[in-house]
Amino acid sequence: MNAPLQNHLFRLIKRPVGEPTRDDFAFDVENLAEIADGQLLVKTLYLSLDPAMRGWMNEARSYIAPVGIGEVMRAGGIGTVVQSKHPNFQVGDTVSGMLNVQEYAVSDGKGMVKIDPNLAPLTAYLNVLGMPGMTAYFGLLESGQPKAGETLVVSGASGAVGATVGQVAKILGLRVVGIAGGKEKCDYAINEFGFDACIDYKNQDVRMGLKEACPGGIDIYFDNVGGEILDIVLTRINLKARIVICGAISQYNNTTPVKGPSNYLSLLVNRARMEGIVVFDYAPRYKEGAMQLGQWMAEGKLKSREHIVEGLETFPETLMKLFKGENFGKLVLKVA
Amino acid sequence: MNAPLQNHLFRLIKRPVGEPTRDDFAFDVENLAEIADGQLLVKTLYLSLDPAMRGWMNEARSYIAPVGIGEVMRAGGIGTVVQSKHPNFQVGDTVSGMLNVQEYAVSDGKGMVKIDPNLAPLTAYLNVLGMPGMTAYFGLLESGQPKAGETLVVSGASGAVGATVGQVAKILGLRVVGIAGGKEKCDYAINEFGFDACIDYKNQDVRMGLKEACPGGIDIYFDNVGGEILDIVLTRINLKARIVICGAISQYNNTTPVKGPSNYLSLLVNRARMEGIVVFDYAPRYKEGAMQLGQWMAEGKLKSREHIVEGLETFPETLMKLFKGENFGKLVLKVA
Repeated sequence: MNAPLQNHLFRLIKRPVGEPTRDDFAFDVENLAEIADGQLLVKTLYLSLDPAMRGWMNEARSYIAPVGIGEVMRAGGIGTVVQSKHPNFQVGDTVSGMLNVQEYAVSDGKGMVKIDPNLAPLTAYLNVLGMPGMTAYFGLLESGQPKAGETLVVSGASGAVGATVGQVAKILGLRVVGIAGGKEKCDYAINEFGFDACIDYKNQDVRMGLKEACPGGIDIYFDNVGGEILDIVLTRINLKARIVICGAISQYNNTTPVKGPSNYLSLLVNRARMEGIVVFDYAPRYKEGAMQLGQWMAEGKLKSREHIVEGLETFPETLMKLFKGENFGKLVLKVA
Repeated sequence: MNAPLQNHLFRLIKRPVGEPTRDDFAFDVENLAEIADGQLLVKTLYLSLDPAMRGWMNEARSYIAPVGIGEVMRAGGIGTVVQSKHPNFQVGDTVSGMLNVQEYAVSDGKGMVKIDPNLAPLTAYLNVLGMPGMTAYFGLLESGQPKAGETLVVSGASGAVGATVGQVAKILGLRVVGIAGGKEKCDYAINEFGFDACIDYKNQDVRMGLKEACPGGIDIYFDNVGGEILDIVLTRINLKARIVICGAISQYNNTTPVKGPSNYLSLLVNRARMEGIVVFDYAPRYKEGAMQLGQWMAEGKLKSREHIVEGLETFPETLMKLFKGENFGKLVLKVA
């Protein structure tokens, strides 16, 4: 018998107050037991780092159970099956699923999806062909109800969800205006993802920027950030506008109460709507979404851009890039 | 020729800051000129006093133009045609329309609707069969999407819109919980309008009240008040809940910024929706609404209760009853 495999992993040991730090986790190494019948062992290749992970660290009721104290931090990822006693998986299969922040994941196969590494780069399965892509696609189409000729504004424009929302809206014939932090990100949204305009909220007056970039007002706002920007957008929406609440990254590390949108009565004046979306609701339709997005990728109309950082041990600091706005495109942790 | 008719009226002479007072209006008496061809003269019987009037006094962009400084204050009402040079109206006709805060209105007939005083009490045409009724009916059905067995919460429960929302929801088979200010109003909502429960926000903890009265959570919240109550309701909504933003009377006299709902991310967690409604959007369907509501009234399932105050000269103080929460049912000013 071989020496047992060693598994490096991050356990959540404290509920973060404000920004999560390395102290909120224990970086451990543990021996892996033999897998049992019906199980498989997956070696993690890439982990997806997402703003939603911050919410999972809180005790509060949400759309998914919090990560328990002492548990391995939850994360989706891509891996290779290295051992299998499960009839549906073979050694060498590439899978996508909740691998969590560790080198090896033991799984009973539930939620593990086999993916074809020849169809698209592996990291695209964590981006346009993964959760961010599904979030963008179904959130935009189902809640945003886009129509050609309308104007869409999306915050977090160079992030995983925002970039796909903008690109899909362009494909559908909308005018697309991004909001992002910094000139580089705005240039990226325009030059890399084809946005019509992008407002740099760190260096520009967002109100004036929206006035210039959206002379006909805003029909759809896809919100990833919340806070002050949501409030400003509310002053410029059109009749029957749709606001898709996908996230509020500006508020996730708050230690004070969340800032509510004080201009929400613009919804009344404009008979507009603000709706929250959670990607898991569309799980029965992921295949449909992935096929459409994959087709657009194959046609060269849609790009999947990942910001890859290497090394499992960098996890806490790499995650913080999201909240510091340091990532360009989907943030991915390369583990092996 | 007779001596000219004298017309007492209230003109808006200042934009109120905070609560409107008598000083914001001029109470004038003016001679009426002879009506021209195509015009009619309507003697005001009743005027409708509504929270929305506060918004019309502001300069700000809204769903309807503000009342201009120096103009007669806008108000809907019921009156009798006392002179007519208009082919469609005869002396003695009873009409409903924008009569404004005055004893006599000169009209070209636009927006004047003949009503049948034998079908329902005149004041019901300002209530269940008028704008508040239409607001309640279409707001609830179109934006609220009620389903039998669901739980609806409505604020301003004993007010014109709230009472009709609650009664219609009961007719449709929902559990109906009101929120109102004071024990008397709550008793009124339960005993007069058939609500299942009512929370007295002035003397009860709304959070605990909702927990007790809505053990299965809240599927629809019909909001007439905004502010803190909206924020509390947001913590108790169900998956796919619908929040109908009809008004925000708690915020209309604010001199500080409106309080935004800081719990709005509950929309995300619950994939819920918050939508603004304005009754005028349903104008093409008013007849349909009035027929249904009139039928329910005739069947004894739906009550139209008005709080009538007499005397045009009392207008500013009577209007303030709305904001002080002193009215039981639809507030109506009896002019003649």
